[in-house]
Amino acid sequence: MPSNLARPVCILGLGLIGGSLLRRLADDGHRAYGYNRSTATVAEATAAGYDAAGDLTAVLRRAADDDAIIVLATPVPALAAMIAAVAEHAPSCLLTDVVSVKTEVAALVAAGHPRARYVGGHPMAGTAHSGWAATDPDLFRGAMWMVSTPDDVEAADWRSVAALAHRAGAVVVPAADDAHDRAVAAISHNPHLTAAATAAVGAGESGLALRLAAGSFRDGTRVAGTAPELQRAMLEGNATALLNTLSETIDRLIAARDALRDHGSVEVLVADGHRARRRYEEVAAEQAPITGVEVGAPGWAAELRRQAHLGRVWLP
Amino acid sequence: MPSNLARPVCILGLGLIGGSLLRRLADDGHRAYGYNRSTATVAEATAAGYDAAGDLTAVLRRAADDDAIIVLATPVPALAAMIAAVAEHAPSCLLTDVVSVKTEVAALVAAGHPRARYVGGHPMAGTAHSGWAATDPDLFRGAMWMVSTPDDVEAADWRSVAALAHRAGAVVVPAADDAHDRAVAAISHNPHLTAAATAAVGAGESGLALRLAAGSFRDGTRVAGTAPELQRAMLEGNATALLNTLSETIDRLIAARDALRDHGSVEVLVADGHRARRRYEEVAAEQAPITGVEVGAPGWAAELRRQAHLGRVWLP
Repeated sequence: MPSNLARPVCILGLGLIGGSLLRRLADDGHRAYGYNRSTATVAEATAAGYDAAGDLTAVLRRAADDDAIIVLATPVPALAAMIAAVAEHAPSCLLTDVVSVKTEVAALVAAGHPRARYVGGHPMAGTAHSGWAATDPDLFRGAMWMVSTPDDVEAADWRSVAALAHRAGAVVVPAADDAHDRAVAAISHNPHLTAAATAAVGAGESGLALRLAAGSFRDGTRVAGTAPELQRAMLEGNATALLNTLSETIDRLIAARDALRDHGSVEVLVADGHRARRRYEEVAAEQAPITGVEVGAPGWAAELRRQAHLGRVWLP
Repeated sequence: MPSNLARPVCILGLGLIGGSLLRRLADDGHRAYGYNRSTATVAEATAAGYDAAGDLTAVLRRAADDDAIIVLATPVPALAAMIAAVAEHAPSCLLTDVVSVKTEVAALVAAGHPRARYVGGHPMAGTAHSGWAATDPDLFRGAMWMVSTPDDVEAADWRSVAALAHRAGAVVVPAADDAHDRAVAAISHNPHLTAAATAAVGAGESGLALRLAAGSFRDGTRVAGTAPELQRAMLEGNATALLNTLSETIDRLIAARDALRDHGSVEVLVADGHRARRRYEEVAAEQAPITGVEVGAPGWAAELRRQAHLGRVWLP
């Protein structure tokens, strides 16, 4: 029921994620408009028929008048300034975000706009490309969109943010901020580091090696092509969780190296990796729905989190 | 000039690689036939209209009568028996292979059929699937196909194996066996281990983590889905070269972990990985040809290897 999304949507930042969201909502006839600091991006978006502007104060006053949902969609380094502007010009608007690391964004919101009606979010969608030119209204189709689900969240606000994700074409996954950050360290941020190491080792061998590189190298190093500053902002913002997954990765590779050196065998790592990949494929294929929860009923947030922790999703 | 391939082709082993080669050659009207140990595979191939049999001796006698090129296309553990049978029933046929690790296959040939006219080969093509059911006549289209190019190779035999690769739709990359094995450790075997570790760490976190897994995890762990026994045969057969690349990978990840822990930064690894990925994309896009070499002229093999080491390819 995408029509649950009653409010207009105001998007701050029109890069890959924010721009794709603006396009998807506007293309579907939903009232949506955006801000971007770069006049070139504003010009591109406007020329493509979208409602975009470069005056942050004016955009936020319009959002306040509209009672719009405001979506933070800038890189992390720009967030504090955005949040301060929201606190000044549109303090009562429902606020969400589409930024990778949830505890970090929640802390920035708590510091800069402590009375915010804030419900965090994170769509698991992206490409190695960035900026307006990379935007795609279908970017979120079928993607998982985490919606922050702490115990004290307002049910109506949570419903609105979930409706935004559904309207974008995504599937909602309710989670606590810290559980989300550990999860994305494991399945998104850590893969960036292993891809980088794999790429660097491969390219360091010879021109012959890169010439012979085929599917395993192409796919395994794809995310290393993402703009370095975007990768760093994402990974360094989740340093604690990432240190744990990176250390486990190193431990597993050292154990494999020792077994290969001493016994000529990579059996354990290959078997563990194969089992993990099969499990991932099963999870990706199934999408069991969260059931028996009414949002707003006693204990609803904890029950959503519990079921999502098992891999289930929240359908409209 | 695919017509350079004058001889019939006899393929021993009709799994993903051998079966795809049989289909491609036969579909193009070239005389090709194959052997497989499994009667089920022979039945499948025959039912699909291909010339396949399960009697190794008979197939090899036919190859000897035909003066066919014999292609070793079984997994490594079956190679010694195949080579012994070739030595017995078709000793004067030109022999090549499509198996991953070249020094290992060359040693098996030297041990089991020392007078063989052997020119090794390795098509850089594959999927996470295996067996006849996964075969695809277009598997080699545009793929790199390494052809062993030692100083003492017969020019006419080398030309025939290169013509086979071209006829399959591939691009020929001349190389020494040991240089090839170091290269594939870096760009194929090492990525299998980093993919396995990445998958195991991701799946170990929670059902929530696998539910949130998106493109970086899907692509970065794809090869971990390959049958473990195939991965092991390939990786463990290249243990020495793989130990070097794996150790370098571990060193890079440890340096990144220390920098993240002590300085909150992953700058070096992310920058190195990004630069390496860009370099790979440049190499993949360009395919400069080897020039100025006449196969058979003095020093031709060394000159082919030298230019290929820079990333160039041998075009028909």
